Amino acid sequence: MSPQTRERILAIASEMGYVASSAASGLATGRTRTVGVLAPYVSRWFFSRAIEGVDIALQENQYNLMLINLGGYGGNRERLFEHTMLRKQIDALVVLCLGLQPSELEHLHLTEIPLVAVGGPVKGFHQVCIDDYQAAQLATKHLIELGHRRIAQVLGDDKDEVDFAVPKLRDRAFEETLLAAGLRFEPGWELNGDFTVAGGVRAAAQLFDAPGEKPTAVFCASDEMALGVIMEAQRRGIRVPQELSVVGIDNHEFAEAAGLTTVAQNPVEQGRLAADMLIKELDGAVGTVRSVAAPFELLVRSSTAPPSR
Amino acid sequence: MSPQTRERILAIASEMGYVASSAASGLATGRTRTVGVLAPYVSRWFFSRAIEGVDIALQENQYNLMLINLGGYGGNRERLFEHTMLRKQIDALVVLCLGLQPSELEHLHLTEIPLVAVGGPVKGFHQVCIDDYQAAQLATKHLIELGHRRIAQVLGDDKDEVDFAVPKLRDRAFEETLLAAGLRFEPGWELNGDFTVAGGVRAAAQLFDAPGEKPTAVFCASDEMALGVIMEAQRRGIRVPQELSVVGIDNHEFAEAAGLTTVAQNPVEQGRLAADMLIKELDGAVGTVRSVAAPFELLVRSSTAPPSR
Repeated sequence: MSPQTRERILAIASEMGYVASSAASGLATGRTRTVGVLAPYVSRWFFSRAIEGVDIALQENQYNLMLINLGGYGGNRERLFEHTMLRKQIDALVVLCLGLQPSELEHLHLTEIPLVAVGGPVKGFHQVCIDDYQAAQLATKHLIELGHRRIAQVLGDDKDEVDFAVPKLRDRAFEETLLAAGLRFEPGWELNGDFTVAGGVRAAAQLFDAPGEKPTAVFCASDEMALGVIMEAQRRGIRVPQELSVVGIDNHEFAEAAGLTTVAQNPVEQGRLAADMLIKELDGAVGTVRSVAAPFELLVRSSTAPPSR
Repeated sequence: MSPQTRERILAIASEMGYVASSAASGLATGRTRTVGVLAPYVSRWFFSRAIEGVDIALQENQYNLMLINLGGYGGNRERLFEHTMLRKQIDALVVLCLGLQPSELEHLHLTEIPLVAVGGPVKGFHQVCIDDYQAAQLATKHLIELGHRRIAQVLGDDKDEVDFAVPKLRDRAFEETLLAAGLRFEPGWELNGDFTVAGGVRAAAQLFDAPGEKPTAVFCASDEMALGVIMEAQRRGIRVPQELSVVGIDNHEFAEAAGLTTVAQNPVEQGRLAADMLIKELDGAVGTVRSVAAPFELLVRSSTAPPSR
């Protein structure tokens, strides 16, 4: 076929809306040009932003994105692993912030496709994520350095997710940072906010309703919970930061609008980097996929201040 | 092959993590068991919730979800339509809240796959969405019935998206409802909030900074903008609802926590219904795909009250 003829055929094909069947070309190359994203949730901040980041890299390289939503932590995911993920429809996989069970890990190893975890470690695989211990330590130290001595914690604890390390790391960093500063940790001031704004509201209500001395500051393991704490404080006329300092982790899109001090991370960049590494690996640059410590920084806004005397 | 032998082979194959190549079985049936979701954004509330809804229906029916993120409105989407979407990798398509250009519509018609629009009309296709005019009218009437006479509007206007009807319908409903109540519409009180919380903050700042009489209520075309207005009001010490009533549309996950009065809609259910119709259509129930008016209702919370005298 002459180059002219080839071009003409392609032009007519394009006009007619025709494209090569990727099912057929996939059989020839053994590739689908599709990357899977395995997520416990789609609509929470971290996940939706990370998906967006993965997608940016995939679009740049003409890959498709297969979204595999596990519908929450825990529960019966066996079916998904059996029927959906291993259908040989994906060339590589990004796992978002997920603790996996041993049988699931085994399945992933059997697929023998490149895999990167984003936002939390997955045993035996490379990962792109912040150092959760250091991030929580940075937030807690900020409160201590402002002069706070009575500090509560709202932690995110997905009880179903026994293997998920992120909430545990942030919790341990908070407690150890308090102890290192010679501060006592009040057992009643550690509340579970489920990583949601509604959970933050509930935790704050519990904190404010409890009899006895009140904390002057709250460390929240995510911005969504911190925003819930601020909303509940405002409803009760408790002034932030004059009467209560609040710090979070993430830099949620609402954080700047609400003036929330936070330890910022960038899930869009984390997702993008993970997908970029996978694509390079697929294109033959074996060994590109590696673990990367994602950056984070303290952004001081108007929700934290020294405690009033 | 005896049933016993077949079962035994399947058991061993499952143990080994083996599943049928869907690329090969897709060639045989002409089906990929994959439904595409075309979205302008992933991480905004409506889109992430609608994707979650589509995914629920797909999971129940063992379909995969291919996410086709257009990265915002407008811009150069030609490549995506040419290279990604028409690769014959999907059996059906859900289009989220998107005004499409004539050439894009033509491409969609050429694919000849079942299609449903969710959250906004797509010319020539069936749709699942609320009546945006009536929803905005309901919110505006609520403010008028409380006694407000000086009402501002924060509208979402994606200027790039010339064909997208949702913001225009809500805008028109607001203006006509005011006129029908004999109220004058102040040109300076119509502000663009870009459907984001940051846009709501900016619009509120503009409104509060302007000289002259202030409105006693604000109608916002989405909750994300309404939450931004409330945050900016709180920053300035303007009490909600005593000095300013705020109403939104959506029932965003933050709305209840913030006490926001809103016209609630349920994008999870809208996405789920759309995907259900597509699956039934693919399974041979021709004519299942149809337009459906999604429900909406006014939820009165603590952000609206009669104007103080």
